[in-house]
Amino acid sequence: MIDAPVITFLSDYGVKDEFVGICHAVIADKCPAARVIDLTHGVPRHDVRAGGLILAAALPYLPHGVHLAVVDPDVGAERRAVALLLADERILVGPDNGLLWGAAQRAGGVAQALDIARSRFRLEPVSATFHGRDIFAPVAGQLAAGVPFEEVGAPVDPAQLVALELPRPRREDGVLIAHALYVDRFGNVQLDVRHEDLADSGLKLGRRLVLESSSGIAGSAHYVRTFADVDPGELLVYEDASRSLAVAVAHGDAAARLKLEVDCELRIRPA
Amino acid sequence: MIDAPVITFLSDYGVKDEFVGICHAVIADKCPAARVIDLTHGVPRHDVRAGGLILAAALPYLPHGVHLAVVDPDVGAERRAVALLLADERILVGPDNGLLWGAAQRAGGVAQALDIARSRFRLEPVSATFHGRDIFAPVAGQLAAGVPFEEVGAPVDPAQLVALELPRPRREDGVLIAHALYVDRFGNVQLDVRHEDLADSGLKLGRRLVLESSSGIAGSAHYVRTFADVDPGELLVYEDASRSLAVAVAHGDAAARLKLEVDCELRIRPA
Amino acid sequence: MIDAPVITFLSDYGVKDEFVGICHAVIADKCPAARVIDLTHGVPRHDVRAGGLILAAALPYLPHGVHLAVVDPDVGAERRAVALLLADERILVGPDNGLLWGAAQRAGGVAQALDIARSRFRLEPVSATFHGRDIFAPVAGQLAAGVPFEEVGAPVDPAQLVALELPRPRREDGVLIAHALYVDRFGNVQLDVRHEDLADSGLKLGRRLVLESSSGIAGSAHYVRTFADVDPGELLVYEDASRSLAVAVAHGDAAARLKLEVDCELRIRPA
Repeated sequence: MIDAPVITFLSDYGVKDEFVGICHAVIADKCPAARVIDLTHGVPRHDVRAGGLILAAALPYLPHGVHLAVVDPDVGAERRAVALLLADERILVGPDNGLLWGAAQRAGGVAQALDIARSRFRLEPVSATFHGRDIFAPVAGQLAAGVPFEEVGAPVDPAQLVALELPRPRREDGVLIAHALYVDRFGNVQLDVRHEDLADSGLKLGRRLVLESSSGIAGSAHYVRTFADVDPGELLVYEDASRSLAVAVAHGDAAARLKLEVDCELRIRPA
Repeated sequence: MIDAPVITFLSDYGVKDEFVGICHAVIADKCPAARVIDLTHGVPRHDVRAGGLILAAALPYLPHGVHLAVVDPDVGAERRAVALLLADERILVGPDNGLLWGAAQRAGGVAQALDIARSRFRLEPVSATFHGRDIFAPVAGQLAAGVPFEEVGAPVDPAQLVALELPRPRREDGVLIAHALYVDRFGNVQLDVRHEDLADSGLKLGRRLVLESSSGIAGSAHYVRTFADVDPGELLVYEDASRSLAVAVAHGDAAARLKLEVDCELRIRPA
Repeated sequence: MIDAPVITFLSDYGVKDEFVGICHAVIADKCPAARVIDLTHGVPRHDVRAGGLILAAALPYLPHGVHLAVVDPDVGAERRAVALLLADERILVGPDNGLLWGAAQRAGGVAQALDIARSRFRLEPVSATFHGRDIFAPVAGQLAAGVPFEEVGAPVDPAQLVALELPRPRREDGVLIAHALYVDRFGNVQLDVRHEDLADSGLKLGRRLVLESSSGIAGSAHYVRTFADVDPGELLVYEDASRSLAVAVAHGDAAARLKLEVDCELRIRPA
């Protein structure tokens, strides 16, 4: 490798505490040459699904390297800790709770899986509550430093890995019934309708829509390309930057307007 | 260049989501050697003026390099995307909405301007909502990697660039009428009175002042050098670290105390 | 040194404003080769003790280098600005207000102390309110760049440095009376009971406990190894990742449940 090895890092550790910083320090100790890219540490606490969706959607933009991800509500319990070598030679490191699943699928699937809970590269003594520091970061660092993949853990059958369950949209009587998957800082709400679902969605760009959320709030929206296609304060439905259907309010907050939380149903029909 | 090229990065993307991380990843892909310095991503959402003020004030402390800035409420609309070569050879990259204006003035003005909306270095397909990822970050990365400035876009007349309008203080009957420009995390309020305005302000260091905010709250303050010159809980007026007049409460929150928001008027007179 | 020099950086500057970014820029200017690791910038505002505890607990995980720490409620007042060469050759840089004390003790004590308020490496003019930018960051950068320690300031007697006062737990009639030292983003509450205090604490792993906070809230808890050892929503007492006793709610918020704030007393007795 001529360029510095890259480690990307996603977690729900937040920015208030030192959790992220300590993982960076451990990585720097194991692989001083690594370039660490913080994808985000603002995943909602324990929200494995949100973390998994972000990682999978971001993957095409990430340089090939080691992709460390820690959203780990069951740290210290029986869930596996894994390193996954993907078909495209990327490596994922994190808990085996579905967090890595979408990214693995997106990269062509898992070629080899290892259980790293007892990796010889973990830090001793291993705490019961901070495997990011004691298992995941040191293993990621060692892999970036060039340790052969096979050496960091014990083989696991990739078919045994935990999958991520996601809701799917459906159509009933001309109504598209979608679900909120993720709400970003701006209150934009990503739905479970992907680019490849759109042809079959009954929606036509430029048309007016009626939205009804499962909390009983209704609203009129335009199906457009971008925020600027509607007036400030108006609802819009659009394909977002990760090519999923999303709902927003131009210069406003759609989640608040429609009282939409993750997993809420949103009914969408032509006006 | 012997040292690694530097890219500084300011935005209103926040730290909850992966927007900043994805831009870092795109930059790392285009210019693996770049050192990226996050100036801040906590600019209030869509607050072009706050972003512009921060960038301009910070500029003297930033190593020469490419200065990427994205506060872009009109992404996807008709506003230009630009790269600006400044008189002092710094390069600014961002939307042409006033965000870059103050920094450009501070560095001696714009020597060359390019429209980069259709840059051959943008990522395809360009999304309608995330030009940070698709246009600004890749162009900034390529410039840091050494692509000649002229190659990243099409020439624009610098005289056509959008300026940033700022309020200005005035004096009436011995009262200095200032405006709140920015409120920091500590509740310290920066005013539109700059170091070079002070000689003409009627204020004398060490004197007591009476403050009256446009929300009707009044208070007594000291005009001093620093927080420690007053007792905890007392109001002070001081020249802040970017050499603008500011109001604070020692160990407290001046914005809350005086109910001062951005653009509020603050009347200041000798006690 | 073959590897890039490391600077770790802790502060209460937060992520909303540009304070951290500007310090990074100053460091990059003084030591372009430095690898800067942000330990955290989320220390509660002016909370010298929380910052000091985090730094001391993190130290064993940090690569040897320059450790910059700025929680500085008395910036501009008479408190000293210092650089400390420790017995293990680490260097600490920050205000002399107790913030560096615990880390210095942990590394074997202070070998040499320098007052850097008038360091020839500070930025001129020195502001009265942002010594992170004007004194601490440039001195840390110069030290990382290889300037001999003795050259950055004037000698101070290490015995004159400000110590950090911490509460200590006590036992009364079979009750362990502890104090809340720190609350993390998850609402987990670290107590002043350290690993070495446990043998004498009267607590036995696996037993039920009764907790009573000084705000009058009581609860039943298990003393266990980790979150997963109790059901979601249950209180647990455990030794945390920095080997201090802590209280948590599995998948919940113990600080909110017990109305525990920093310095609150928590009475712990066997059920």
